[in-house]
Amino acid sequence: MRRQLMGEFDFIARHFRPLAGRGAMELRNDGATMSLPEGGELVLSSDTMVEGLHFLPDDPPYTVAQKLLRCNLSDLAAMGSRPQHYMLNVSVPSGRHYNEDWFTRFAAGLAADQKQYDISLLGGDTTGSPSPLMLNVTILGSVRQGEALRRDGAQPGDGVWVTGSLGRAALGLQVRLGKLNGGKTSLVEAYRVPTPRIGLSLYGIVSAAMDISDGLLQDCGHIAEESGVGITLFEEELPFAPEVMAHMETHREMILLGGDDYELLMTCPVTQEAALQAHCKEHDVPLTKVGTVREGRGVAMLDKQRRPINFSRTGWQHF
Amino acid sequence: MRRQLMGEFDFIARHFRPLAGRGAMELRNDGATMSLPEGGELVLSSDTMVEGLHFLPDDPPYTVAQKLLRCNLSDLAAMGSRPQHYMLNVSVPSGRHYNEDWFTRFAAGLAADQKQYDISLLGGDTTGSPSPLMLNVTILGSVRQGEALRRDGAQPGDGVWVTGSLGRAALGLQVRLGKLNGGKTSLVEAYRVPTPRIGLSLYGIVSAAMDISDGLLQDCGHIAEESGVGITLFEEELPFAPEVMAHMETHREMILLGGDDYELLMTCPVTQEAALQAHCKEHDVPLTKVGTVREGRGVAMLDKQRRPINFSRTGWQHF
Repeated sequence: MRRQLMGEFDFIARHFRPLAGRGAMELRNDGATMSLPEGGELVLSSDTMVEGLHFLPDDPPYTVAQKLLRCNLSDLAAMGSRPQHYMLNVSVPSGRHYNEDWFTRFAAGLAADQKQYDISLLGGDTTGSPSPLMLNVTILGSVRQGEALRRDGAQPGDGVWVTGSLGRAALGLQVRLGKLNGGKTSLVEAYRVPTPRIGLSLYGIVSAAMDISDGLLQDCGHIAEESGVGITLFEEELPFAPEVMAHMETHREMILLGGDDYELLMTCPVTQEAALQAHCKEHDVPLTKVGTVREGRGVAMLDKQRRPINFSRTGWQHF
Repeated sequence: MRRQLMGEFDFIARHFRPLAGRGAMELRNDGATMSLPEGGELVLSSDTMVEGLHFLPDDPPYTVAQKLLRCNLSDLAAMGSRPQHYMLNVSVPSGRHYNEDWFTRFAAGLAADQKQYDISLLGGDTTGSPSPLMLNVTILGSVRQGEALRRDGAQPGDGVWVTGSLGRAALGLQVRLGKLNGGKTSLVEAYRVPTPRIGLSLYGIVSAAMDISDGLLQDCGHIAEESGVGITLFEEELPFAPEVMAHMETHREMILLGGDDYELLMTCPVTQEAALQAHCKEHDVPLTKVGTVREGRGVAMLDKQRRPINFSRTGWQHF
């Protein structure tokens, strides 16, 4: 930590020192240390959340903290890694509502999820920001040497599987923006507090994995491209909750393209399907087969009549 | 990596994929992996640079990249760690001059320092930014288990030592801001491209270490506080280059308080002074004894008449 804000030491001591874990040296040094289990390798991922782009200024600080950690935890889940620690970087605009009270509630959200996911804060820094609040986490976990899940192993004939249900977060954002009448608060909750699928052990079962953050279609595109295959999805197989189905007529494209789900997207050889289903059942994780991997390129989604759906866009976009 | 910018994949492929090292999986996965040497533990540090606060919009992108890496490398140096990899997070404002050309030169600066310090890019993310350009690096290195240098080991009677020379970066910033007439361009260079003191092996020799980023006085304060001691510095012992001495009459306080030096600040028992001097000489690192650790609290700087100097501030401040 360096180049501290005015009063940064007190600020860190008050809000973040109670979150510091083993190796963090109470956030009092230039950096931190971390050990790995014997035979393990480190898995890292990093995600930034920008006020106005990834969260709204009036989102509850408690859930902003949870989403920040959970988006990162979801990346580790997608790599089959057990989370251990995280680094936190915060850039705070002055003269706004990001004050003592805001950070007290933000730290409470971090603390709750540290407990839930058995992780601790290792270090980071705090700076000013000329305009938006910027929050960045680098999450650190471990996996047995060579056993990190990857995106590039999908083979023609594999099934395409997703955990949980889709579309709730995308609709939840619309509710938040005042653009969806009659949307349930559970949709907003899904947008604010995703459920990372930490704790599964899918190495040797699935052939490729990633998390769904940009939307099913776009993220299938990543697996297809990295694996050199094509993917066909079936609309009628997609898992949607009733509060999502209620908006299907008016918001079909938004629901199908989704985004922000933070569910796992996997491809699995037919020979391993039973193992995948048994493992997810054991861990109480809902699982649905939504498509197949084929030779070729690209991703197609077929409607109930097995006709390709033409979308006006492919997934979540920033600007 | 998730929630990509429009065209982020191409952007990453063009600029950052060539920088990716072993474990980065060509930046194509949700995260990255990293192994540690046998018996090693991970050392991490993270620093954010914000446009307008830590660099100026018209600073050369090549040196912005170098400074970003070197500030982080300096944190590893302060912990006695060998650097291996880094994570890079970039938040880019749209409609500004941070375009293709800017990032080509930025990536060239990263590439040059990757070569110089034998490190490689491991992952990160790219987002938009409503206003300033934000650059964040988490640097990753290793150290033998338990041998990370810390700030809290200074003992009364130890000497206080610094590497290199001080004050050039602080004056360099003034030159950049048009507030220092007759300042040499070497001062600006020192501000833009610090020299992290990577490569020394000081475990068992020094009793405490950190890097000087906020200024000698303020950073001595950190060691004093963490170690529960007082520190006395002697103005006449401080190492200043001739181009700094030239401004001593007009800018004494700015020079003495400094900031942005990224030199090592160490305390060393008298019994280890010969070892410290021999080690630094072997590595061609200039070394100067500038003070002593005493019982008590706080930091005092004495002038040539051994009178305490009263400063109007203690060091570098953000706002």
